[in-house]
Amino acid sequence: MLAAAKTASVAAAQLSPAEKSKVLMDAAKGLESNASAILAANRKDLAQARKDGLNAAMIDRLTLNPKRLREMAAGVRAVAKLEDPIGRVLSRWKRPNGLKISKVTVPLGVILIIFESRPNVTVECAALCFKSGNAVILRGGREAFHSNRALVEVFQRALKRRRLSAGCINFVATTDRAAVDFLLKREQDIHLVIPRGGEALIRKVVRTSRIPVIKHYQGICHVYIDKKADLNKALAITCNAKLQRPGVCNAMETLLVHQDVARRFLPKAGEALQEGGCEVRADEIARRYLPFARAAQASDFGHEFLDRILAVKVVPDLDSAIAHIQKFGSAHTDAIVTRDKRAARSFTEKVDSASVMVNASTRFSDGFQFGFGAEIGISTDKIHARGPMGLEGLTSYKYVVEGNGQIRE
Amino acid sequence: MLAAAKTASVAAAQLSPAEKSKVLMDAAKGLESNASAILAANRKDLAQARKDGLNAAMIDRLTLNPKRLREMAAGVRAVAKLEDPIGRVLSRWKRPNGLKISKVTVPLGVILIIFESRPNVTVECAALCFKSGNAVILRGGREAFHSNRALVEVFQRALKRRRLSAGCINFVATTDRAAVDFLLKREQDIHLVIPRGGEALIRKVVRTSRIPVIKHYQGICHVYIDKKADLNKALAITCNAKLQRPGVCNAMETLLVHQDVARRFLPKAGEALQEGGCEVRADEIARRYLPFARAAQASDFGHEFLDRILAVKVVPDLDSAIAHIQKFGSAHTDAIVTRDKRAARSFTEKVDSASVMVNASTRFSDGFQFGFGAEIGISTDKIHARGPMGLEGLTSYKYVVEGNGQIRE
Repeated sequence: MLAAAKTASVAAAQLSPAEKSKVLMDAAKGLESNASAILAANRKDLAQARKDGLNAAMIDRLTLNPKRLREMAAGVRAVAKLEDPIGRVLSRWKRPNGLKISKVTVPLGVILIIFESRPNVTVECAALCFKSGNAVILRGGREAFHSNRALVEVFQRALKRRRLSAGCINFVATTDRAAVDFLLKREQDIHLVIPRGGEALIRKVVRTSRIPVIKHYQGICHVYIDKKADLNKALAITCNAKLQRPGVCNAMETLLVHQDVARRFLPKAGEALQEGGCEVRADEIARRYLPFARAAQASDFGHEFLDRILAVKVVPDLDSAIAHIQKFGSAHTDAIVTRDKRAARSFTEKVDSASVMVNASTRFSDGFQFGFGAEIGISTDKIHARGPMGLEGLTSYKYVVEGNGQIRE
Repeated sequence: MLAAAKTASVAAAQLSPAEKSKVLMDAAKGLESNASAILAANRKDLAQARKDGLNAAMIDRLTLNPKRLREMAAGVRAVAKLEDPIGRVLSRWKRPNGLKISKVTVPLGVILIIFESRPNVTVECAALCFKSGNAVILRGGREAFHSNRALVEVFQRALKRRRLSAGCINFVATTDRAAVDFLLKREQDIHLVIPRGGEALIRKVVRTSRIPVIKHYQGICHVYIDKKADLNKALAITCNAKLQRPGVCNAMETLLVHQDVARRFLPKAGEALQEGGCEVRADEIARRYLPFARAAQASDFGHEFLDRILAVKVVPDLDSAIAHIQKFGSAHTDAIVTRDKRAARSFTEKVDSASVMVNASTRFSDGFQFGFGAEIGISTDKIHARGPMGLEGLTSYKYVVEGNGQIRE
């Protein structure tokens, strides 16, 4: 498989935008026309999942149906229509000796993606990696094994129809964990690993891998309500960041409130959060305005709840808010709500998170919301790709140097 | 030291271009005004090196003198004058909901550089990392321990003079190897590792590190003489790529010659290479035109000689040359000599090396030659930075999102 992936990646790098789009449009169609085979494979996984006693939320994430397949197909068509990221000239310049240097985007090569149970990740990753001219090796969770295999087969048939190698989109056809450990050592064959899943999975991948890994461990997102905040906006942003989808990485986990507005802001915020079914864990000062709140423990700050639970702290000033975020944040997404441009500027300069928001919900930290048209993941690393990561994050570049016989003195 | 580096990196990220330049100009001056102390430290290293029986070339690399110190100082002043790479807006766009998104360059944070004996690497890396707003941890070879420490002290004094933390530029004040193993596990404190040295050092770093590593293992550079080459240019490029400085990573290691020009080109090339003191190891066909050459062994292709030794092979066509490079190259730098634009285009598209040259010597693959004004290293990785790596490679970016109260539907 590694040899096939390598060979396929060399060919994939040379495909025209039109060739790649055709394969993806065929694959999208295939997801719809092969619905019965895919759903049959999915039923196998679901039967096993019930036998293994997976909880309702996990079963729901695993379940495919015709509507979800149509949504997947629409996603693949959307990727097909994105601008091709390969062969773009990022910059071009001429040296005094006449050498013309161009910096041109190229695919990374072979990408390994290790993910947990949702089968739609298979489809998204296959589409994005192929669109960016990479070969991909997909390793999904064992719960979705049959579903993932059926989905990959749709892509492989689309490849074969255009006489392209199935090695462009590979599926690890075993649930044996030794296979992953083996792959993670193959730095000569694989150029990038993207683990998508819980923190334990990601830590294990980083420990084992000799290949570069792009990931985020946690999204410990903060919203800071400044003393010069518009408190109506602050309320809307607080509720949206915490309640709109509490289980995802760009949801707020800690609310910081300037002491000058705590009395005016916190009672209303507390009421809205309570109505939204949110448990509040507040520090001593904040509890004066949130009598219903539990006393926060030290461990509640810097904690990723991924649930309807929020830590709240009152801070004496902007710098304390920034210092708190520097100490407890995970450099994913942090927001300030303020009308004071200087405070906003200080916050965006000093908070070194992948996405820093001013007067907007942390929930916007997302490839689609950023307008990338797709998202392969969110990176809290500072190497290669940071923040929401679309097609551009799946490319590298080469330097093309054109001369007329120049030699070095 | 790690705590100091982290704190210093937060402060360094906020420094203005002028503040950084001042420190570097002071450090440059310090290299000159503290010459006697630095040279005394260097003499300690040299005495030990002689005792340890290091060879003449290694002693030369280790040796400092007033002229070399002045050159180092000039290098630091040149870095000080480069455009500041931090706070640049890489792109900026507006979303339909009114969110304004900017992608702004930021420092990486804390960078660990592990290198072998040349003390000038200490100065270059300190200057480049500081200019890019990073804190750096320098770990040089034990042979240059006293020299490196004296050089770092010059920078630390320049920092203190401007009331900045010495933690911006750190020196690992022990030659114990366990210190390196310890540092390479501290992914929470260090954002990037750059090993500079021999392949064994680099492989060990990659095996041990949990931190992203940027490196090149080898420079197995090829020059391909096409059937439509200008043979005078081909001769000049061949000699330059092989002989101008054979011991460096962008020197040619294998020469590929199209069979149609082998008879006209190889005898002349052979003569020039012989005059340059170069041993030639040729395949069977090439030896017809290079009667003095040794028969190449299979292991001579894809070998990094780093010496006046060259492998030569005659190929039947362009595609064979490309296939040879794909199989035996190290994706560092490869060149074609041709007047045929289609051949040049095919070569630059299909050869996936960090630098692909047309009608120019491989020796131009270098940060200074590319016009970057500096070079921290050359990367054959495809992640983050590829090819000659200047200040830009020492930066990441953040997304700054400015709204007016937007929440997600």
